[in-house]
Amino acid sequence: MSTAPVSTPPASSLKSIADSRPVAYPKIITEPPPFSIETLQALLDGEQKPMRDRVKQILRQPHFRYYTGTDTAEYREKVFHWCLELAREGIARIGYPAAAGGEGDTEKFLAAFETLAFHDLSLVIKFGVQFGLFGGSLQQLGTEHHHRKYLLPCGTLALPGCFAMTEIGHGSNVKDIETTATYDVSPREFIIHSPSPAAGKSYIGNAAVHGRAATVFAQLIVGEDRHGVHAFVVPLRSAEGFLLPGVRIEDNGQKLGLNGVDNGKIWFDQVRIPREDMLDRFASVSPEGEYSSPIKNPGARFFTMLGTLVGGRISIASSGNNAAKSALAIAVRYAGRRRQFSGPKQEAETLLFDYPSHQRRLMPLLANAYGLHFALQHLVRVYAAPKRKEADTRALESLAAGLKAWSTWNTTNTIQTCREACGGEGYLAVNRFAALKADTDIFTTFEGDNTVLLQLLAKNLLTDLRAKFKGMSKLDLLQFFGEQTSTKFVELNPISTLKIDKAHLRDTDFHLAAFRYREQRILLGTAKRMRRLASEGADAYATFLSCQIRLGVLAQASVERVILEQFAAAVTNCSDKQVRAVLKDLMDLFALVQIERHRGWYLEYSYLQPRKSKAIGREVDQLCADLRPMAVALVNSFGIPDECLAAPIALR
Amino acid sequence: MSTAPVSTPPASSLKSIADSRPVAYPKIITEPPPFSIETLQALLDGEQKPMRDRVKQILRQPHFRYYTGTDTAEYREKVFHWCLELAREGIARIGYPAAAGGEGDTEKFLAAFETLAFHDLSLVIKFGVQFGLFGGSLQQLGTEHHHRKYLLPCGTLALPGCFAMTEIGHGSNVKDIETTATYDVSPREFIIHSPSPAAGKSYIGNAAVHGRAATVFAQLIVGEDRHGVHAFVVPLRSAEGFLLPGVRIEDNGQKLGLNGVDNGKIWFDQVRIPREDMLDRFASVSPEGEYSSPIKNPGARFFTMLGTLVGGRISIASSGNNAAKSALAIAVRYAGRRRQFSGPKQEAETLLFDYPSHQRRLMPLLANAYGLHFALQHLVRVYAAPKRKEADTRALESLAAGLKAWSTWNTTNTIQTCREACGGEGYLAVNRFAALKADTDIFTTFEGDNTVLLQLLAKNLLTDLRAKFKGMSKLDLLQFFGEQTSTKFVELNPISTLKIDKAHLRDTDFHLAAFRYREQRILLGTAKRMRRLASEGADAYATFLSCQIRLGVLAQASVERVILEQFAAAVTNCSDKQVRAVLKDLMDLFALVQIERHRGWYLEYSYLQPRKSKAIGREVDQLCADLRPMAVALVNSFGIPDECLAAPIALR
Repeated sequence: MSTAPVSTPPASSLKSIADSRPVAYPKIITEPPPFSIETLQALLDGEQKPMRDRVKQILRQPHFRYYTGTDTAEYREKVFHWCLELAREGIARIGYPAAAGGEGDTEKFLAAFETLAFHDLSLVIKFGVQFGLFGGSLQQLGTEHHHRKYLLPCGTLALPGCFAMTEIGHGSNVKDIETTATYDVSPREFIIHSPSPAAGKSYIGNAAVHGRAATVFAQLIVGEDRHGVHAFVVPLRSAEGFLLPGVRIEDNGQKLGLNGVDNGKIWFDQVRIPREDMLDRFASVSPEGEYSSPIKNPGARFFTMLGTLVGGRISIASSGNNAAKSALAIAVRYAGRRRQFSGPKQEAETLLFDYPSHQRRLMPLLANAYGLHFALQHLVRVYAAPKRKEADTRALESLAAGLKAWSTWNTTNTIQTCREACGGEGYLAVNRFAALKADTDIFTTFEGDNTVLLQLLAKNLLTDLRAKFKGMSKLDLLQFFGEQTSTKFVELNPISTLKIDKAHLRDTDFHLAAFRYREQRILLGTAKRMRRLASEGADAYATFLSCQIRLGVLAQASVERVILEQFAAAVTNCSDKQVRAVLKDLMDLFALVQIERHRGWYLEYSYLQPRKSKAIGREVDQLCADLRPMAVALVNSFGIPDECLAAPIALR
Repeated sequence: MSTAPVSTPPASSLKSIADSRPVAYPKIITEPPPFSIETLQALLDGEQKPMRDRVKQILRQPHFRYYTGTDTAEYREKVFHWCLELAREGIARIGYPAAAGGEGDTEKFLAAFETLAFHDLSLVIKFGVQFGLFGGSLQQLGTEHHHRKYLLPCGTLALPGCFAMTEIGHGSNVKDIETTATYDVSPREFIIHSPSPAAGKSYIGNAAVHGRAATVFAQLIVGEDRHGVHAFVVPLRSAEGFLLPGVRIEDNGQKLGLNGVDNGKIWFDQVRIPREDMLDRFASVSPEGEYSSPIKNPGARFFTMLGTLVGGRISIASSGNNAAKSALAIAVRYAGRRRQFSGPKQEAETLLFDYPSHQRRLMPLLANAYGLHFALQHLVRVYAAPKRKEADTRALESLAAGLKAWSTWNTTNTIQTCREACGGEGYLAVNRFAALKADTDIFTTFEGDNTVLLQLLAKNLLTDLRAKFKGMSKLDLLQFFGEQTSTKFVELNPISTLKIDKAHLRDTDFHLAAFRYREQRILLGTAKRMRRLASEGADAYATFLSCQIRLGVLAQASVERVILEQFAAAVTNCSDKQVRAVLKDLMDLFALVQIERHRGWYLEYSYLQPRKSKAIGREVDQLCADLRPMAVALVNSFGIPDECLAAPIALR
């Protein structure tokens, strides 16, 4: 209780704030890093640095400023015009053949695409639909006639187009789509038709407003014969933008995100197209109605047609990781300037980033982003490599499927965690998490649902394993399984399950061995289980269902092994000592966090002893703390232009 | 290659779809459940069933149909008018005292609030800001004068108001807010002032458009003395809606979600209010400037003032769980009608819900929603209980903090998983995940950031433990710690770490013992570590930082134990045999999934042996499959009106 004299406080302590000084965010506290940001950024950018720089230069221009309104029609027009700008700059056709005005440079095109993902993701997806999916299908499934007639105007955006594969009734199951393409021999035309409402193409980007043509996937019918899914170019709208007869389109309406992209549903009512507009690289119908294909096996033919999706998966995986980088850049910079609560003796409140729990939230995600970056660059190189055997194609497909799934789930998780790490500020649209979160959310679903993609990868691993078995006698097989799934691997080196010295815990050979052991052990365990079920009389489908959950686990283990291997290769190949040191720490963090996440499994299989498992947890804490002073430099090394980052809480 | 004769296909196979039949979703496949949905729903609704039914009846009306536009101003008006409707129905003031026209029935009010969360969450938050936070602060911090003058018009929405606590510079750290309330003795007024731009109140619901007054939290200054944070009623706008002199307001702008709520920032420039408008239940200033309070300890006084937040936390935890229930209802019903891919011998494609991986995704979340429901009902009963000692208050605070954090993180995770489980359909705004996801995202941050709340709970657990130590000799203490943190608990019953028979794995006593062991062991381990650090000379703050990560783990373990205990009580108290059986299965699933999630920890502490850990994983798979045929009935038992659910993919 106070009895001190009471008076009006002096005016000085009550100076007016009516002049509305803007709230300036405090300075970002960061120490000079023990490595060169330029060197690290150059390493990340790789050979395509000039292309990346050029795209960033374009995105920095004032007319690329983000759309901040809520009017969907206006937003779609804005995104269309951004695409037009990029087409004018020649960015769109870099990957196309010369006949379509391009340079035939896939790596360069993917680098450009990836860089766009630092900007509005509706732009990325609209750009990808037009130049990657529509253009890619013309390029890869069509022949020179199509390249000249359609791909050329596609690359300049003179012909906005769609990639009409998915149907309402058949999301991921493309093989069972219902749309038909029936050959009519006398006028030499195909009749494109939707036999039921559920046969409508759905979620087709560019369909609701801008698309004038579409690559349509349909069941080819010639006479009495059904030849499976093939692709056709079908006009949708006149040059003036009016729908053509027989085409019905509905707007898919408001979506959770990506509202700058005009997705729509399309139904065809006996739409006739000339015979020449079948994309005929892998199959054709002669004027007289004779079907022929250089690929004899219908299954192989189908998967070759679907090959167009691989490029899309790579692009989505990379775009997702770049969106995650943006989120990390914002959250890390904010954590370096925002203070909350203080110790009893302290003057200033504590920086968010000086809380161990905050470090634990953000640092492992930063390590993931780096690891994925290197793994995805590897994937691009494999994809762009000139020639491929069938086994190579399956390996590429597996790699793209697995990395797409792992990367996009990591994107969702990273952006969510970064949003929460920025508290209420993270919830304001101006700070960009709203868009990043909503726009990337569908990445886990489109270009192949992640759950389905992981099964694809796991099945390929089992197929490869089965190839190994071929020729083995039953006795050899039994012995093989017995050996491989015993704890023999571990028993060979009982000390390693107990070792907890720092040198060992930070040893890349230990990490790689642990990742590989896990993948191999789950693979063999699954194969063994499948054999047992089959020997008990279960059919293949029942066996698959009974192993489905572990197929997903297997696939994830496999992807993680690939990421670590590529991370390790990047560290080894890095010629700058300081940069190599920080990358090694990030890689260790990535490796140990995964082992920690799966420590239940490692303990169950006695690959780790409890003491070692606990020591790994402590090492992760320590690594997070050790890397924390470099965190701002590590996100700055991503080289995201401030104009793209845009969030006021993150700007210098 | 086909040489069959080719001709135009018969017209019948190409019937027109130009009549635009809408795409009907297939029937939801569900078996009659082995329990009565009505009985289970009545059990969930509890004593407040009439209130819940009344609110649902209101929400079913056509003028409560969701707003589907994108115009923020329009949306805000819509939500305001919904609030007005609810006020007219008398829903808003149920919890208020008679002097303010209420019934003083907290449980009834919370049941009404919770039920609103089946509808638009902007409505829930706007309603909560007005009647829960603004009204609650007047009710709990004010006295009868304030109840008559302000609370009465608050409850009818004649006086729209704000709860102005959070400041730009101080999100969760309320103690250090900067706004001042300086007493000026001669005119007997307080001067409310924002001394810096960062002192602006931010994220204040109702501030940007509708608020006419606010409960403002400010540092009370009387003469030379600073008395800490107190609350004052400050007018913002005239009856005509014009800003009053000295008040500056900025719109917070577009947010990630909840855009039907008009959040704003407020600065005060020497705004004078009469002495009587200080909310004076726990402290007052006499006309002559004498400060007095019935609570002598300033810390205790501060936490009493903050007590208003407890009601908010309870409401957010329940609203989050009800939003999660909506998401589950949509995803589960869709999984019961959507088919994708088929086995080689099957006619129809497989239902999503017949995939084990789909069951594994959704069923554990359904169990969480049930477990949380019972735990939150328990929390409401504790909150509404008439009298409380100080220890009770701390226990309530802990319970609310912990459940709010666990429930809202579970909400985020559940809605995300459900969105993905519905694939592309889940991404369409019309199917509701867009709104559910965006609107609930901030629940993990507001009413206390989850990370901060978990620390609050953990600190309370440590305080309680310390109270136990009091009076123990050093020797006793050493022995106590030695015993409690040895593996003695387990060694007493070595068989239980190995047991894997079904009866044991499904034994609630095993589950409860495992949950309690984990909480207790982490608590004692943390206390031991803190003692060690203190004995090594670390100050309290350094000790706290060094234990911060495990404090979060401790708090989560504690909340999970509470949820399981309340789940078990609900099962025990259920008088209907069939309902009890299904609830027991759900509880087992909840318990085993948590043990599985933490199996790394249990294995590290040898509470489980590897074989048992693996058996638990298999039992979870089995439980998911066993419960799957009942899943649709289990979400229908939530009793969410179809008008609220609204998603076309989920409607019968």
